[in-house]
Amino acid sequence: MNRIPFDTVQNVLAAVLRKLGFAEDRAETCARLFAETTRDGVYTHGINRFPRFIETIKNGRVDARAEPETVARCGALERWDGRRGPGNLNALAAMGRAIELGREHGVGCVSLGNSNHWMRAGTYGWQAAEAGLVGICWTNTMPNLPPWGGAERTIGNNPLVIAVPRAAGPVVLDMAMSQFSYGTLESYKKRGELLPVDGGFDSDGNLTRDPEAIEKSWRPLPVGYWKGSGLSVVLDMIAALMALGQATHQIADDPVKETGVSQMFLTINPAAFGPAPRADEIVEGVVASLHNCPPLKPGGKVRYPGEQTLRMREENTKLGLPVEPAVWELILAM
Amino acid sequence: MNRIPFDTVQNVLAAVLRKLGFAEDRAETCARLFAETTRDGVYTHGINRFPRFIETIKNGRVDARAEPETVARCGALERWDGRRGPGNLNALAAMGRAIELGREHGVGCVSLGNSNHWMRAGTYGWQAAEAGLVGICWTNTMPNLPPWGGAERTIGNNPLVIAVPRAAGPVVLDMAMSQFSYGTLESYKKRGELLPVDGGFDSDGNLTRDPEAIEKSWRPLPVGYWKGSGLSVVLDMIAALMALGQATHQIADDPVKETGVSQMFLTINPAAFGPAPRADEIVEGVVASLHNCPPLKPGGKVRYPGEQTLRMREENTKLGLPVEPAVWELILAM
Repeated sequence: MNRIPFDTVQNVLAAVLRKLGFAEDRAETCARLFAETTRDGVYTHGINRFPRFIETIKNGRVDARAEPETVARCGALERWDGRRGPGNLNALAAMGRAIELGREHGVGCVSLGNSNHWMRAGTYGWQAAEAGLVGICWTNTMPNLPPWGGAERTIGNNPLVIAVPRAAGPVVLDMAMSQFSYGTLESYKKRGELLPVDGGFDSDGNLTRDPEAIEKSWRPLPVGYWKGSGLSVVLDMIAALMALGQATHQIADDPVKETGVSQMFLTINPAAFGPAPRADEIVEGVVASLHNCPPLKPGGKVRYPGEQTLRMREENTKLGLPVEPAVWELILAM
Repeated sequence: MNRIPFDTVQNVLAAVLRKLGFAEDRAETCARLFAETTRDGVYTHGINRFPRFIETIKNGRVDARAEPETVARCGALERWDGRRGPGNLNALAAMGRAIELGREHGVGCVSLGNSNHWMRAGTYGWQAAEAGLVGICWTNTMPNLPPWGGAERTIGNNPLVIAVPRAAGPVVLDMAMSQFSYGTLESYKKRGELLPVDGGFDSDGNLTRDPEAIEKSWRPLPVGYWKGSGLSVVLDMIAALMALGQATHQIADDPVKETGVSQMFLTINPAAFGPAPRADEIVEGVVASLHNCPPLKPGGKVRYPGEQTLRMREENTKLGLPVEPAVWELILAM
């Protein structure tokens, strides 16, 4: 594994994006989001994901030059058209506007249709929480999960992010509706390991911890069985309904053809009523209650969502971003 | 099982409530909510739950006369104090106000602290969706679930409701953060059956489908393991933070002493920008994609969240509400 300084990564990615038609500032921002994702330890959606992102620009699914447009406004609510632009830039702008709306109205909401994969979901939660607001956002995806009781993939894993501001570092939940991503199944298979808990069905319809059997059946398990399946469905409905955009069943069932996703960005402003001295104390109290919980296994520790991120961020900032040599060479040749 | 007409149930429950100090209209509404819950097939939180509700009035946890109070306003956001009044009346009023705010500002949000158990969570989702708005609400609870990796109950099962309006009947997800409630564990144990999937840990820390072993260990499983545990934590933080109320770890760990819970009520208005002729078509499209999904098991069917409710409602309205004779006698003697 190479270690490359953050700025070098950002500059190299930005140069590739400029060649593909990104305006100067948009190339810088888009490259920064990819670099920050790797910096924060989300390796599936950072630098490693960049080549596939470039493929979707080259195949026309992502329009490098398209900027999102506000199509309707009403008080604290806006509807945006993503115009098939880069998903991470669209999402960053939409959450940015939801933050402004939340500051003005106490709560804010932007629905974004006709967009593209937003890469790391947690990015927009961190964005809201670092601005001092509660952030709730989700996206629909191509059909990649069978609904509970169903044999075919007709629902999405629709990542949901819920972020809470906190002086010592935000609490950020970033969860897809599948128990394990296809990326995680692949990693377990490569290591020849079974999953720690059931992750899907085999081709005979039995629950299994065997990652290969799940890859073969294309039947990963929704988180919490029927519950995550239902949660995926309502998130999809709301995003499509509010954006007047596509629902999961209408989205192309192929990672490099997927386009036209629908997303929601909600903010709630804890400072709306003026300074709330007890606010941070309340969040810290919950964190302490987790840290004080005796572990199930000796030496274990109960963590809050996103607790590892700041440590990863610090380590990767100091040592440089970890990059697989083959991926880096591919990017340098772009 | 007795079958008692809806109106009779409502009248009998209302009479009990009046005796305990409820004003005329509040007794009628509170009784109606209990009757509607049984009518809709949620037997755990309808008539069967009424005796325990009465116990919490008698022991002083619930103040029959207390009405909620708005303590802060900012645009589309309000903070309410539930003043330890009846949880279902408080929640109904809070969602009612969130609906008004959503109609005015596109989105609306009410945080409610210092309240009590709201009984059936789905009630307030149905309320929003029947008013034509997307409704999202959740409550924290007493600690009744170990966090992922922890040995003691320090998080709540914090029910989350997400409701989507639909002309042919709302789509309403009503999910607690435990895979199975203690009530469900009890039912399986009584029938001598194993759970359909792992439901918790036994006293040695192994995952098990044995309901009795889970009751003994007090270690039910969060939905989706670490994911539902994280979701429970952030929902708790947001509710306590926005209401400046108690977090789960501060709530009395006993079903008849539990009081001072924190809740969130959010609405999003699909009609905020004027008539949206495609809105219902979009939701119907998702419903159809589920209904058209081939079942995993022959004869099976994929359902949307809340699909059974209208059928139950019709049946129980026609035949009368199913009531256990022992429970009904208890109530008649109150």
